[in-house]
Amino acid sequence: MAAFSLHGDLVWTEEIGAFRTLEDGYLIVEDGRIKGISKHRPDMDIIDMAGRLVIPGLSDLHLHAPQYSFAGLYMDEELLEWLDRHTFPEEAKFSSLEYADKAYTLFAEDLLSSATTRFSAFGTIHVDATLLLMRKLEEAGLSGYAGKVNMDRNSPPFLSETEEDSVSGTRRFIDAASSFTLVRPIITPRFIPSCTDGLLERLGVMAAEGGIPVQSHLDENLSEIEWVRSLCPWASSYAAAYDRFGLLGTTPTIMAHSVWLGDDEMDLLRKRGVFVAHSPSSNTNLSSGIAPVRKMLERGINVGLATDVAGGSSLSMLRMICEAVAASKLRWRLIDEEDRPISFPEAFYLASKGGGAFFGRTGSFEPGYDADIVVLDDCGCRTPLRAGLGPAERLELYAYRHPDDPVKAKFVKGRRVL
Amino acid sequence: MAAFSLHGDLVWTEEIGAFRTLEDGYLIVEDGRIKGISKHRPDMDIIDMAGRLVIPGLSDLHLHAPQYSFAGLYMDEELLEWLDRHTFPEEAKFSSLEYADKAYTLFAEDLLSSATTRFSAFGTIHVDATLLLMRKLEEAGLSGYAGKVNMDRNSPPFLSETEEDSVSGTRRFIDAASSFTLVRPIITPRFIPSCTDGLLERLGVMAAEGGIPVQSHLDENLSEIEWVRSLCPWASSYAAAYDRFGLLGTTPTIMAHSVWLGDDEMDLLRKRGVFVAHSPSSNTNLSSGIAPVRKMLERGINVGLATDVAGGSSLSMLRMICEAVAASKLRWRLIDEEDRPISFPEAFYLASKGGGAFFGRTGSFEPGYDADIVVLDDCGCRTPLRAGLGPAERLELYAYRHPDDPVKAKFVKGRRVL
Repeated sequence: MAAFSLHGDLVWTEEIGAFRTLEDGYLIVEDGRIKGISKHRPDMDIIDMAGRLVIPGLSDLHLHAPQYSFAGLYMDEELLEWLDRHTFPEEAKFSSLEYADKAYTLFAEDLLSSATTRFSAFGTIHVDATLLLMRKLEEAGLSGYAGKVNMDRNSPPFLSETEEDSVSGTRRFIDAASSFTLVRPIITPRFIPSCTDGLLERLGVMAAEGGIPVQSHLDENLSEIEWVRSLCPWASSYAAAYDRFGLLGTTPTIMAHSVWLGDDEMDLLRKRGVFVAHSPSSNTNLSSGIAPVRKMLERGINVGLATDVAGGSSLSMLRMICEAVAASKLRWRLIDEEDRPISFPEAFYLASKGGGAFFGRTGSFEPGYDADIVVLDDCGCRTPLRAGLGPAERLELYAYRHPDDPVKAKFVKGRRVL
Repeated sequence: MAAFSLHGDLVWTEEIGAFRTLEDGYLIVEDGRIKGISKHRPDMDIIDMAGRLVIPGLSDLHLHAPQYSFAGLYMDEELLEWLDRHTFPEEAKFSSLEYADKAYTLFAEDLLSSATTRFSAFGTIHVDATLLLMRKLEEAGLSGYAGKVNMDRNSPPFLSETEEDSVSGTRRFIDAASSFTLVRPIITPRFIPSCTDGLLERLGVMAAEGGIPVQSHLDENLSEIEWVRSLCPWASSYAAAYDRFGLLGTTPTIMAHSVWLGDDEMDLLRKRGVFVAHSPSSNTNLSSGIAPVRKMLERGINVGLATDVAGGSSLSMLRMICEAVAASKLRWRLIDEEDRPISFPEAFYLASKGGGAFFGRTGSFEPGYDADIVVLDDCGCRTPLRAGLGPAERLELYAYRHPDDPVKAKFVKGRRVL
């Protein structure tokens, strides 16, 4: 892969809370990786994005690809009702490959035009539809994980499997998925209420044996937590239940939400190196609450951000950065004045290098990082009255005012995909 | 003014909480007012917006026009710090008419392309700049109120007046503003901390004598409330302090925020017929809290929605509808389970007919209402998978996913302005 340099106004974070910037600078890419940055024009091919913002690609640690078709609808309901009335019936439609093809084509197109370069996505219980999702994302040039969902209890008959079918389907899914290179399989029990102990145990073994990562939901909603308590009376906590089945950090693991995480659970998540996918927009939309992000960070838990489409209504991780800031302010004001708000540069770090760490070295412009790069055209923000803003202020302005605009250019592992 | 009919998919609310819709219908306008709706093509001039959403114009009950130039910036600060560091220095620039001309031209252009037809805006302390703001808004064809701000204490030297100058300036402002027809003057003490008792008393007299409406801020932030308590030890509450000066409902009055409203204050606001400008986005951005909207509605207080630019980062009232829903869900979950969340149709009512009541009969398609009409092009939302949605669902989808898109057409009092 040829070397090149991207010319523009660079903004990134290396440590949480502080922007690094290089206005009118050059980002040097070689072999799909960041080689370095320079104030001076290097002697190599230049891609000219002068006057535009150049940021690391963002990582969406949790989203439901099949739910994208109703993102922005049915926002007046709480989690369990919303699952029954809208989510499960929609996901059932993905038994048709024809339907899945239409839906996932649109999803991949829109994800491509967003600032996201890495993702960890839920599919549905359907093996072939989820393989199709992987193909669409791979063809779009995006990178990350996608999982066939497991559900063998407490699920509507039209969206349920037997334990046996769930296990054999997951095996077939993992085998077939080995043909992809950018998008890899991830083991995806929906959540404890949807999976029997037997299934969870076998998924844990499968993860460990194949070295396959795991994603699921944790502590999203109070009724859900109560339900888990009654389903797993033997577990000291929701997190401990996953742990019992080897599904909490035996292999790299993402747990979405963690809104109502107890102290013991925080210790366990840190010990197991679990990544929390903080989904502020979804947690508000589904009346779940506000996750203790500051506390998790202070305790050394890995935290990234996530849209959780369609609990979140938008694929924009820039919007999610602003929502993470907003939610943390309300948490500080309304729940715990010791949890000081997450600042804009802190939230940007979580969306880039913080969550990016799940995928390796991505989300920063430090040498050796994957060349995941996004170019934003913020000319529309730059009225005469806003002249003289530095790149970091321009990024804040863009994220608050134009979070849903298509990006101008995008590179994944050094390859231009848009 | 000629009669005409607007053809499209109509959505509006007459009572709080329930959408009315007429797909492929006709909205009949005569003499600047709604005459009625029809399923059948009337025999008159037709403006064809077939397949588009047609909604009542929205009312933004509280925004700061001079702050629009930094909307979306400096979002990591709380109210009083944010005022000192960014707001006051920016507002001071409006002593220059040249600067004001640039800033207010951009503001009026962007407000015109939003779904807002009515507004109540703060200017700055500068009389001529605020008259210029009125002219820009009048020329854009928009309607509402704008106020020269009063500040004679606790303000930086570069943005302060004497009591005498503040009163004479306000008189000159009100006299000169009589030349406008769509945009009218409103008496605008910034808030209690910025105005001496003497000034507030004279503004109260001026409001009563001239029948001029009043706007100010109330109970936004805990530090601010503490400050008011120390400044007005004789008042039983923040609201009671305004009341003592005849600035709480002697004439039509808007109080922004009311996040931390006490029970006695709720009674007083209801008794005085005050309109509360609920500003959910700003209240989150400035870490103020979440206003008790459900309680206010149950007690019969008039509530409308507001962007509070630049505490809010966007002029979009559609976005504010979604934010009002979102904030109410967190209030229900985190503060008081008796305050059940505000639904999307309820929030839409507040943004249209609810807040519109401050301006007379506007914000609905009932006969006799002012023909304030906005057309939204939601074609971008209508993927093949979302076919079959009714107009109310399409409106929810548009508001959650495209709240900042420019509107397709706009009418104010029957006149097409866009």
